[in-house]
Amino acid sequence: MRTVFVNGSYVLENEASISIFDRGSLFGDAVYEVTSVLDGKLIDYDGHMTRLRRSLDELKMPSPASDEELLEIHRKLVELNGIEEGLIYLQISRGAADRDFLFPGPDVKPTLLLFTQKKSLINSALAERGQKIILVDDLRWRRCDIKTVQLLYASLVKNQAHDSGADDAWMVLDGEITEGSSNNAYIVTEDGTIVTRDLSSDILHGITRKAVLKCAGELQLKIEERPFTVAEAKAAKEAFSTSATSFVNPVIEIDGAKIGEGTPGPVARRLREVYIASSKAAGI
Amino acid sequence: MRTVFVNGSYVLENEASISIFDRGSLFGDAVYEVTSVLDGKLIDYDGHMTRLRRSLDELKMPSPASDEELLEIHRKLVELNGIEEGLIYLQISRGAADRDFLFPGPDVKPTLLLFTQKKSLINSALAERGQKIILVDDLRWRRCDIKTVQLLYASLVKNQAHDSGADDAWMVLDGEITEGSSNNAYIVTEDGTIVTRDLSSDILHGITRKAVLKCAGELQLKIEERPFTVAEAKAAKEAFSTSATSFVNPVIEIDGAKIGEGTPGPVARRLREVYIASSKAAGI
Repeated sequence: MRTVFVNGSYVLENEASISIFDRGSLFGDAVYEVTSVLDGKLIDYDGHMTRLRRSLDELKMPSPASDEELLEIHRKLVELNGIEEGLIYLQISRGAADRDFLFPGPDVKPTLLLFTQKKSLINSALAERGQKIILVDDLRWRRCDIKTVQLLYASLVKNQAHDSGADDAWMVLDGEITEGSSNNAYIVTEDGTIVTRDLSSDILHGITRKAVLKCAGELQLKIEERPFTVAEAKAAKEAFSTSATSFVNPVIEIDGAKIGEGTPGPVARRLREVYIASSKAAGI
Repeated sequence: MRTVFVNGSYVLENEASISIFDRGSLFGDAVYEVTSVLDGKLIDYDGHMTRLRRSLDELKMPSPASDEELLEIHRKLVELNGIEEGLIYLQISRGAADRDFLFPGPDVKPTLLLFTQKKSLINSALAERGQKIILVDDLRWRRCDIKTVQLLYASLVKNQAHDSGADDAWMVLDGEITEGSSNNAYIVTEDGTIVTRDLSSDILHGITRKAVLKCAGELQLKIEERPFTVAEAKAAKEAFSTSATSFVNPVIEIDGAKIGEGTPGPVARRLREVYIASSKAAGI
């Protein structure tokens, strides 16, 4: 049984609870981060914590812990749960208070919770085979740059993808791809250019996105950060997604259209290797 | 201290908790209803339960209780907490399961929680004075017809309204009003016609909206269900909102523009009286 962290205490997962009045549950008034663990070390940790601070700032939500405390909790959970490979999930809500759309006063302390998941991340059958993607309308709220727990639509379309025999869904806004259900989306054009949507409130500012684009730059690959259309995606030479726990994940099919040869492409495979190697080297 | 209901048990509010793995908290994967109580009786109860079933159906979420059980819990909470006037909040999430965008299997039971709030609803200083409204872009997800707990944007704009000295925010999509932060929005035109946006996925299908429109019909008032523009709203003779706990709530100012005489208008005041009287008569 896992040990998790809730509001200052390390407790067994089946005893880990929050108030029914927690604003994360009543209002979706909570933000989160997922940090992957390789060789027992935290990957892109500083990036995730920087984004966490930004999410809190955007929502004027106080932080329940210092940088030092958060790092200590992450490390202790890795140790207590013997996580060699997997992830740590962190969530901060605005705390528990009687239900009111107005924020509670400063006496209400934010809720902090973290838990781990053991997972094989590097050896991934899906990354070997390549993902089949369906396209769906992007019906999410228009502040996708804030990493809130309002993930119901992402969950619905991920289920829809699985129900239709696919692996994931990419979202389409005004004819252009925004991102995947829980990942950023990329194509590789005929001339080898990597194209991914530019940062705005339409997409999550992926920490893995940033690191992978850095790897691509170091490999002298051409990169364009701009919206791309459904037609461009279906005609692409390659496609892939990135996220903290899937790294670089090749795409072989989009809405039934075979991408490239219908097998993971060389750019995606190379970026996956390079990202994993550099992440392992830089893990803390 | 209140007694609340969580997953089969009546417990004190400070002992009422849910798992940190509850999908309401991790994914916004939960729906809710708020039923008002007048003279110790449930108002528009059948309407709220019908909408609850619809929300569950739209999300393919199982129900944790029968109609009879839900009514019994509502009544028992009213009794245990001595609620003469106030509300009962009900929330159902898809249950607690290790975090995964894919829905859990049928072994995972939905989470059911209910709690009461004592509130003076009929004697309302705000309804006497009339609301000042600010207009904000409608950035919510595009399934506002499903009553989910993804209320962060509504909470943000309600706070924004208060910070700017107003009472609430109405949302604007493509130049037209959708609805208020937690209520439906109406104007009365120069010729006395009540205008409110027609039902679609852009707004909540208000139970109080339906009941108030019925009252308006019985009063032989002219009703148009259609989108109305910001310009129409600012030029309106009257404006008001409706919700389960605010009934009919007059509006006296929209984005700084005085509405009518700048005092609660006769149509809104009449509808409020008639709705309260008919609700009291029909409460169960």
